[in-house]
Amino acid sequence: MTEIYLRKTWYVAAWSGDLGRQPLRRVFLEEPVVLYRNQNGDPIALQDRCPHRFVPLSLGTLCGDDIQCAYHGLRFDGSGRCTLNPHGDKTIPEALRVGTYRLAERHGIVWIWMGDAALADAAAIPDFSIVGDSSRYAAAGGYTHVKANYQLITDNLLDLSHVEFLHPGLRTEGGHAPRLELKQEGDTVWSMRYRDNVPPNQLLKMFWSDRLGDSRAHMRWDPPSLLMLDVGITGVGRPVEEGVAVPSAHLLTPETARTTHYHWAFLRNARIHDEALTATIKALGNQAFDKEDKPIIEWQQANMGTTDLAALHPVLLQPDAPAARARRVLAQRIAQERTTGVSA
Amino acid sequence: MTEIYLRKTWYVAAWSGDLGRQPLRRVFLEEPVVLYRNQNGDPIALQDRCPHRFVPLSLGTLCGDDIQCAYHGLRFDGSGRCTLNPHGDKTIPEALRVGTYRLAERHGIVWIWMGDAALADAAAIPDFSIVGDSSRYAAAGGYTHVKANYQLITDNLLDLSHVEFLHPGLRTEGGHAPRLELKQEGDTVWSMRYRDNVPPNQLLKMFWSDRLGDSRAHMRWDPPSLLMLDVGITGVGRPVEEGVAVPSAHLLTPETARTTHYHWAFLRNARIHDEALTATIKALGNQAFDKEDKPIIEWQQANMGTTDLAALHPVLLQPDAPAARARRVLAQRIAQERTTGVSA
Amino acid sequence: MTEIYLRKTWYVAAWSGDLGRQPLRRVFLEEPVVLYRNQNGDPIALQDRCPHRFVPLSLGTLCGDDIQCAYHGLRFDGSGRCTLNPHGDKTIPEALRVGTYRLAERHGIVWIWMGDAALADAAAIPDFSIVGDSSRYAAAGGYTHVKANYQLITDNLLDLSHVEFLHPGLRTEGGHAPRLELKQEGDTVWSMRYRDNVPPNQLLKMFWSDRLGDSRAHMRWDPPSLLMLDVGITGVGRPVEEGVAVPSAHLLTPETARTTHYHWAFLRNARIHDEALTATIKALGNQAFDKEDKPIIEWQQANMGTTDLAALHPVLLQPDAPAARARRVLAQRIAQERTTGVSA
Repeated sequence: MTEIYLRKTWYVAAWSGDLGRQPLRRVFLEEPVVLYRNQNGDPIALQDRCPHRFVPLSLGTLCGDDIQCAYHGLRFDGSGRCTLNPHGDKTIPEALRVGTYRLAERHGIVWIWMGDAALADAAAIPDFSIVGDSSRYAAAGGYTHVKANYQLITDNLLDLSHVEFLHPGLRTEGGHAPRLELKQEGDTVWSMRYRDNVPPNQLLKMFWSDRLGDSRAHMRWDPPSLLMLDVGITGVGRPVEEGVAVPSAHLLTPETARTTHYHWAFLRNARIHDEALTATIKALGNQAFDKEDKPIIEWQQANMGTTDLAALHPVLLQPDAPAARARRVLAQRIAQERTTGVSA
Repeated sequence: MTEIYLRKTWYVAAWSGDLGRQPLRRVFLEEPVVLYRNQNGDPIALQDRCPHRFVPLSLGTLCGDDIQCAYHGLRFDGSGRCTLNPHGDKTIPEALRVGTYRLAERHGIVWIWMGDAALADAAAIPDFSIVGDSSRYAAAGGYTHVKANYQLITDNLLDLSHVEFLHPGLRTEGGHAPRLELKQEGDTVWSMRYRDNVPPNQLLKMFWSDRLGDSRAHMRWDPPSLLMLDVGITGVGRPVEEGVAVPSAHLLTPETARTTHYHWAFLRNARIHDEALTATIKALGNQAFDKEDKPIIEWQQANMGTTDLAALHPVLLQPDAPAARARRVLAQRIAQERTTGVSA
Repeated sequence: MTEIYLRKTWYVAAWSGDLGRQPLRRVFLEEPVVLYRNQNGDPIALQDRCPHRFVPLSLGTLCGDDIQCAYHGLRFDGSGRCTLNPHGDKTIPEALRVGTYRLAERHGIVWIWMGDAALADAAAIPDFSIVGDSSRYAAAGGYTHVKANYQLITDNLLDLSHVEFLHPGLRTEGGHAPRLELKQEGDTVWSMRYRDNVPPNQLLKMFWSDRLGDSRAHMRWDPPSLLMLDVGITGVGRPVEEGVAVPSAHLLTPETARTTHYHWAFLRNARIHDEALTATIKALGNQAFDKEDKPIIEWQQANMGTTDLAALHPVLLQPDAPAARARRVLAQRIAQERTTGVSA
């Protein structure tokens, strides 16, 4: 099989709040990884396979900053070096080390770099600053495991026309068809939907009266599969800044070719201390992603048989343009990485 | 793999009574199909895969005679043409169509033709008229899903010697060995068992006293896997017409090479309005097919490892002759279809 | 795949006490076998696949010394010959026979020979006499099914350094590091651990006061995967005979390349009529093997991806020497069997 993943790039490993002193095993791009925080609170990522007998280190326990293998008690520090061999004369063979992954913690998210660590640059992480900006935005986030190729979820997110059919709780009742726009800057692709003079949908209603407004849903995609949705409504003909915004982050990390980690968060810049509202919005996200998107996308994957969408010659409709563009950008990036060893 | 299915032939898709206004997904010969009835009650069969993003149409909803995809709202009519594209300028690309399957509804059964539709001729459906003839026969039917190649079930049905060992509720107590006969007319094969001057078995006893009689069990097979069993008893030396008959239909449709849809029905020409009796006989069928045949045949399939019985060089016994004949006829038909493209 | 099993050798099929007049299906080296006792109590092993239609004979019933197939009533005796064909003229085709396996019953264990029966010699069974010697030893035994290659369990047993980390109930508290010794005689490998002047572990405490003693744990391995552990403690500087011994047998039979039958038994030469103690020790074995070793070894197998440990280049530590030696001996034996057809 040719390489199907972009490697020299940042993926989401976990929500910052989900990582602590309990070792967490996650498979990314088919590689097992153990994640934990050291005593300073810094996140650590090691290959989740002891080099002695290949047991997952995540079954072990933390000893200070190190992780101790459950089977024979070898300890490894955050740099992957063995710090304790309790056996024989206790010498530590040079080969007794595990691979590490470069991490960065930004915006309330632990990011992982799956390629050559020397090339990792946290400045390349796309801007998800509002996710972690709790002074200005409240967040209601979650995690969904999806048995489908990650690009099928990218397709789903870059074509929000499915909302009208699949998500009764999020559709705009009585709204006319939106105006669509596709934009690309560098490798960033936007799928933009505008609807002027419409009633708010159920989500926006929580912050907005029933009166008509100009609404928008602008999905931003960065390779490989990091999406930010700007959803909002403002008075008819009024500037965006006057209205309310309920943006959301959609962060996809391939686990395998047919399974995906999906981290999502709804943000809002209104009623940010209303915790009951946060719970309501989180339930709405669970409903939409776990109960509505996930089964459809898993059926889609199973019914396709393959992960190669193009091989099935899908009929393209107008709203597919942004997803098609994103797939093209990603394919170019993967091809580039493969041939030159360097990703643009 | 060489072709393992006969395609230009009729298979059973569903009992007529099991098909209505709720889309039904079934896989036949490894192809996903969605079945439903239009507003006239006519059965429709479409490829169960939207040509846009390959989600099963069976997850969608019926809108009049059309089915609407759950994901993006495309609608298709019974001819497989798209009738509504709600997106963009709403034009419908020529490629936006799904495959259809020719159906015929006869004898209380929805039949499906899995080959070139132009060649479908309902007159080729074997005679199962008594199954749907409720004025003369009461029916107690069911459906069993079996994790085994369909030909293993054909083998089972064409060699009823297994009844004495596997089905205590159907065996003939105290009966001597039957006389066997094999008959072939065209591609139809009969496996016939006669037992003169024996007590009735438990099924026949429901319509017949305990007195001795001449009993018969004549299994008729038509390609690919459609079987009709004439079971009955009559007075010793008396004509068949004087006795009772409890025929049964056994209709096998391959789902995959290792899984089979098994539709079965017990008919009877006596006490046809006795619904308690119908329930009793249905329970007897469930016991025999779900609890006795199914586990043995599934173990057989698992223990074989392969679906190619001949490769294992089975030892043939006398009662295997009809099944061996039917396998030969079917292999010839499949080979013929493959080489000439035409089935006899 | 090259041959991965030694065939001309004895494996454990079952505890003697687990085999009776109920047919028992077990897969050994990927071959299905049915085991039962004839009316004399002699153990029988046949290929678990009727030569007629390949149903497992183990689904059938015993008729005297024979087993009758559940599907069509064929009967086979302990030599694999068909003794009854109830069909047609009842003649028995020569081909109607099933393969047999040579068995030997020794030490309370039913042993099976998986290669050419002519070469089977019960004298080659390693000495496990104390397992069956109930006048001198009490036994608390069990059976664990492990989803891992059998050699991973051999590795586990030949390197008891894992006890300190994985088995809190068996570790020696406060004990200093043991002295290790590796010994080989012919194809027998010993992994020996000595600890002088230490407190007894939890198991030994049941027979010994809290006072310090000289303890030992000597694991003996014979190909392919038959292990005997001599564990005991004696007064400091005193001869072994004065102390107590709690030996245990660890008998591994590959089911498939990734699954293993694990028969284990704790023996003891003290308080041998104390049944409550036997139950306590059995519970301790269940805890250690089912709850502690099994999950780690299954995770190890899953995390390895392969069954070929060497291909992953494990780092060898000092206590790995005996397991490495045993793997080398076994690989030589398998290679020898493959090239010459004769095992040393």
